[in-house]
Amino acid sequence: MAEYIASDLEKDITIINTFDLETDAEKVIPKGGFGYISSGAGDLYTLEENIRSFNHKLIKPRVLQEIDNPDTKTSIFGDEITSPIIMAPVAAHGLAHVKGEIDSAKGVSDYGSIYTASSFATKSFKEMSDQANGQPQWFQFYMSKDDGINRNIMDEAKANGVKAIVLTADATVGGNRETDKRNGFTFPLGMPIVQAYQSGVGQTMDAVYKSAKQRLSPKDIEFLAEYSGLPVFVKGVQDGEDASVAINSGAGGIWVSNHGGRQIDGGIAAFDALQGVAETVNKRVPVVFDSGVRRGAHVYKALASGADLVAIGRPVVYGLALGGHQGVQNVFNYFQHELELTMQLTGTHNIDEIKRTKLVDNPYGN
Amino acid sequence: MAEYIASDLEKDITIINTFDLETDAEKVIPKGGFGYISSGAGDLYTLEENIRSFNHKLIKPRVLQEIDNPDTKTSIFGDEITSPIIMAPVAAHGLAHVKGEIDSAKGVSDYGSIYTASSFATKSFKEMSDQANGQPQWFQFYMSKDDGINRNIMDEAKANGVKAIVLTADATVGGNRETDKRNGFTFPLGMPIVQAYQSGVGQTMDAVYKSAKQRLSPKDIEFLAEYSGLPVFVKGVQDGEDASVAINSGAGGIWVSNHGGRQIDGGIAAFDALQGVAETVNKRVPVVFDSGVRRGAHVYKALASGADLVAIGRPVVYGLALGGHQGVQNVFNYFQHELELTMQLTGTHNIDEIKRTKLVDNPYGN
Amino acid sequence: MAEYIASDLEKDITIINTFDLETDAEKVIPKGGFGYISSGAGDLYTLEENIRSFNHKLIKPRVLQEIDNPDTKTSIFGDEITSPIIMAPVAAHGLAHVKGEIDSAKGVSDYGSIYTASSFATKSFKEMSDQANGQPQWFQFYMSKDDGINRNIMDEAKANGVKAIVLTADATVGGNRETDKRNGFTFPLGMPIVQAYQSGVGQTMDAVYKSAKQRLSPKDIEFLAEYSGLPVFVKGVQDGEDASVAINSGAGGIWVSNHGGRQIDGGIAAFDALQGVAETVNKRVPVVFDSGVRRGAHVYKALASGADLVAIGRPVVYGLALGGHQGVQNVFNYFQHELELTMQLTGTHNIDEIKRTKLVDNPYGN
Amino acid sequence: MAEYIASDLEKDITIINTFDLETDAEKVIPKGGFGYISSGAGDLYTLEENIRSFNHKLIKPRVLQEIDNPDTKTSIFGDEITSPIIMAPVAAHGLAHVKGEIDSAKGVSDYGSIYTASSFATKSFKEMSDQANGQPQWFQFYMSKDDGINRNIMDEAKANGVKAIVLTADATVGGNRETDKRNGFTFPLGMPIVQAYQSGVGQTMDAVYKSAKQRLSPKDIEFLAEYSGLPVFVKGVQDGEDASVAINSGAGGIWVSNHGGRQIDGGIAAFDALQGVAETVNKRVPVVFDSGVRRGAHVYKALASGADLVAIGRPVVYGLALGGHQGVQNVFNYFQHELELTMQLTGTHNIDEIKRTKLVDNPYGN
Repeated sequence: MAEYIASDLEKDITIINTFDLETDAEKVIPKGGFGYISSGAGDLYTLEENIRSFNHKLIKPRVLQEIDNPDTKTSIFGDEITSPIIMAPVAAHGLAHVKGEIDSAKGVSDYGSIYTASSFATKSFKEMSDQANGQPQWFQFYMSKDDGINRNIMDEAKANGVKAIVLTADATVGGNRETDKRNGFTFPLGMPIVQAYQSGVGQTMDAVYKSAKQRLSPKDIEFLAEYSGLPVFVKGVQDGEDASVAINSGAGGIWVSNHGGRQIDGGIAAFDALQGVAETVNKRVPVVFDSGVRRGAHVYKALASGADLVAIGRPVVYGLALGGHQGVQNVFNYFQHELELTMQLTGTHNIDEIKRTKLVDNPYGN
Repeated sequence: MAEYIASDLEKDITIINTFDLETDAEKVIPKGGFGYISSGAGDLYTLEENIRSFNHKLIKPRVLQEIDNPDTKTSIFGDEITSPIIMAPVAAHGLAHVKGEIDSAKGVSDYGSIYTASSFATKSFKEMSDQANGQPQWFQFYMSKDDGINRNIMDEAKANGVKAIVLTADATVGGNRETDKRNGFTFPLGMPIVQAYQSGVGQTMDAVYKSAKQRLSPKDIEFLAEYSGLPVFVKGVQDGEDASVAINSGAGGIWVSNHGGRQIDGGIAAFDALQGVAETVNKRVPVVFDSGVRRGAHVYKALASGADLVAIGRPVVYGLALGGHQGVQNVFNYFQHELELTMQLTGTHNIDEIKRTKLVDNPYGN
Repeated sequence: MAEYIASDLEKDITIINTFDLETDAEKVIPKGGFGYISSGAGDLYTLEENIRSFNHKLIKPRVLQEIDNPDTKTSIFGDEITSPIIMAPVAAHGLAHVKGEIDSAKGVSDYGSIYTASSFATKSFKEMSDQANGQPQWFQFYMSKDDGINRNIMDEAKANGVKAIVLTADATVGGNRETDKRNGFTFPLGMPIVQAYQSGVGQTMDAVYKSAKQRLSPKDIEFLAEYSGLPVFVKGVQDGEDASVAINSGAGGIWVSNHGGRQIDGGIAAFDALQGVAETVNKRVPVVFDSGVRRGAHVYKALASGADLVAIGRPVVYGLALGGHQGVQNVFNYFQHELELTMQLTGTHNIDEIKRTKLVDNPYGN
Repeated sequence: MAEYIASDLEKDITIINTFDLETDAEKVIPKGGFGYISSGAGDLYTLEENIRSFNHKLIKPRVLQEIDNPDTKTSIFGDEITSPIIMAPVAAHGLAHVKGEIDSAKGVSDYGSIYTASSFATKSFKEMSDQANGQPQWFQFYMSKDDGINRNIMDEAKANGVKAIVLTADATVGGNRETDKRNGFTFPLGMPIVQAYQSGVGQTMDAVYKSAKQRLSPKDIEFLAEYSGLPVFVKGVQDGEDASVAINSGAGGIWVSNHGGRQIDGGIAAFDALQGVAETVNKRVPVVFDSGVRRGAHVYKALASGADLVAIGRPVVYGLALGGHQGVQNVFNYFQHELELTMQLTGTHNIDEIKRTKLVDNPYGN
């Protein structure tokens, strides 16, 4: 295996849009890593539909609402954050930048929002929590088949201040990532958080997933919630009944996602699933949304469709590759600016007003 | 800043269609100016949908209607005009042509329709009104934060014969104009009408918008209507409730528009918003429509969907660049010819008959 | 004006499909003539939608219908013809071939179907009727503004055995044919049938149309029917009410068409209009359909949507250019073969069975 | 006729997806043969829609279903098979590989599923049955016009262990295969099974079809079922009423298919027909589906839409060309893997659970 040389850039970056960011990031991230980060399952239908689907609902702006300074602040579990835009869990930031999750966590803290650490991070809990600077950090959990190991990992997470656990339920095996197969991609880096069951180095994504627990059930929610005492999100929910089962089993939040189009190709766009799930949840617990969010207007539309928080993933990792922690913060600021702009131009003063806004169904397709 | 050298062409132009016109205009308008004029917000989805959306409703022509000379004349507020095709407010015609709004105003007067001056014109009220030649001129107002200045501007407008005020409500900040960012575009020219609050020169569009008033409310309609005694249109309305609030606050007209797709990307096409707003207005006040009008058949479809007048913007500015006031008049004549042709071929004798025509919903998308 | 040199090819041609035919014909028809024949109005949306629209309804084939020799024969006004596929009126076949309508009429007769002569033919009634060989010929009428001339033309038509008159109602002026404008196209050839009001030579299409009568009304149907004693089709009908008015004024047939997408751009596809008109006609008179027919399956779908006869135009003219009368006959045989194939594979034994077939609405667009 | 040189490769192949497989196979299959195998009728609308249509219904995955080892096994007529994925009848495997159906039959047996022999196979019943290795083989029948011949063929089929007869009802003549016409394709190889009525060699597909029986009727089902005593599938059914007629005439199964888009262009996608037919069948007999299946997720969606078994054709022949029997088995394993992956990620433990799954209608088209 050739040496994997990730970016070490540390600088502010100018962002016109996140599509450019992807193009630019491709130049600094090694091919295998970029393919792993950017691509998805099968024909990429669901991946691409994730983005297109934001135009399945259109904004009908209001005017004369007496507004000049929209307020994006919100809070969850008692933590106030700059905006509902938070960091989605993404494996192996080290593929993009030598400082990996250290810089990501710092960039998110500097912006003032929630950092969600992936189980397959290339840095330790400690290295990430050192960057928290008072901002909340959450932990996305790929459980081990061994509950002893799971307890140890939760112990370490809590010792490092993690405030919520995110149980990923939609990746009990890896999706059909054809780009990784074409590139013969294996992980060049270790995964300290889960090292008790998986080193990561030299493994295909498939092997990594298979080393984790497949037979997830509602009992796992109970286990995690009881042992940790933390709110447990179930991530990867696209069906209302699944959401209800999860809540009834003690889930403290529902995370609507299709894993960025990386798992099932030919599945519905995550945004198309959001409203139905949110209506079933009916405010019993917070709803987080991710998958396909590339613009501030997407954040706006997700909030208007039932999300309480909106997580972004790939764009942040591209920002990391291009500018380290500054790049990460720049990406959040870019979304922040577009969200504020959309709020101003739609006449919505704050996040609660967005949530009460109705979008218009677009019968004309994409 | 390099010197900005706009076109000084003065000649009749041959127009096959307005898409060619854009292509030709790009050759004579400096890059920054052309980008500012032609482009729009974000992914340009809404900008492009504005044009495509005219095929969301299709014409089902009638035959044997005994017609050979359709009559396009109409009138508003007592002024008879050649057709319902009027000039939309567009900032900074000087970007396209050295004679700027002087030539635009003359071309529109020569055609025999309404010229709507932008607050961000590069010529003064006096220079424009000198070209009116008995035709009505209206004034699009970006209000100052200072009502004293606003009164002074209205005084000057009235002194120069302005017959209606158009309050733009959908641009309390600039949209996300990525082309301007890529071009590093700043205004090379002054804005005499609003010079009391904004010089314009060397400013980004963003800065220009921010120097104007953001906190617009229905009270602004009352203020403008009472002080000026003129009919006040609210421009940028896409929601029926907004239209009703505006009328109840004294608006003398509703101007359905999404600012040519320059403000919110991912919003509905203006044409798709038109019918609903017009039904709510229900003839209480006149309805003007703009955004995406590129053909005479588009004018026809807008009238059949509830508009009383239809404003055109970019194509006129391209005509200005290519031929000065003759080019402007040629553009209006082009729309006039296509409108007459559509009337003849659909069997509609006059504007009122168009308004009573029903279009056919197109379920097959664009 | 440079000399116009049309094709003089006389030979059998091999036809894979009619799209290839267009490509091949472009090589042998002078540019101006080809542009005139092939193109249409405005953005070509309606022209292209005419063809695409055949997939707005899909065939659900039946099996085990005990069929091996489908019968395409049908009859109209007592004349039996080989199939419901007839010749649409098309102006100026001389643009495609030096023998013009002489060869077209012969090719259609040799196939055994109806030839519809255009008023703007480049050959005389006599030259066409000499090729009839017992097959019916019809006459498409662009009326003069002078009824004396109209009577003379009808006299001549009847003297040459014409069995029906087709009053084109959708072309009281020419559509916006941008290709003709770009090519600066004028007719290089005379129009003997209408020479009493229009020579044709050196005229734009616009001028040709304007020399004919614009103020068509239901009274023209009465006039034509009474004077000629022949069945009068009204061509260009897309609205049920127009069909009823025409029938009540003595029309002997309704011809659903949008003039091949050459008149109103942004109008509905002719095929999309067919079923509604046919339901209103409700078998009171025969329904002919044209516009966009390029395959035998299109003929099948038009019959299943209410047409009694289906007319083809451009493909025949391409066949004429490529092979003279043999080429014309080859084109009809091509459609015949595809129609028989479709009948065999859908289990429909004859034309009446096709008419009773229900197609399936395609909700997925084009 | 130049010598036809098919592939003789025998090796395991790596499959990323079946679209690549087609590209690769094109390099080793002679042009005429590849055109015959890969192409379809007319504009290829229905062929392409067959594949696109799988996105007319989308998967809404379930989570937390406690699954790590989905079970794909199923059975039919008492035979247990590895999965519902079986071999569709495809003519003339010898076009792809010198060992033709010998290798195909072996590859399918090695996988552990049903091999359906085509009447137009280039190998004999005996050569195929020698490869069965205990796995079931079925026989697709293009009947002769002579029932004596039909009885002889059935006798031979039964003598070679065939367990079901598949009566193809949608190909009583060949579709409009334009690629074959362009290539001037004729069969280079003999057809031993039907040699009593058709040699095959040097024949066009059209001639081959016409030598078989066209006048199929429900009585043919009775005849085949009574004489053979075997279950008779009717293949090519897309209409519920046809399915009911067939069952009432003794059909032992319904095979929904549009012959891979090779017969009627402008017909509905086979997948769009499946659910309606399956609902009419209502479990009276098994339903097999083919046409457009290119991914494991397509198999999943077909099962969730009413199919009991799903047949694959072209991809298998491409695998045959690229790797002989190993290639064939590799293709089945590829589908097997994607089906298992889809089951795991949707939380479906076995085939019966898939059949009870509801897909989500996709209103946004392809």
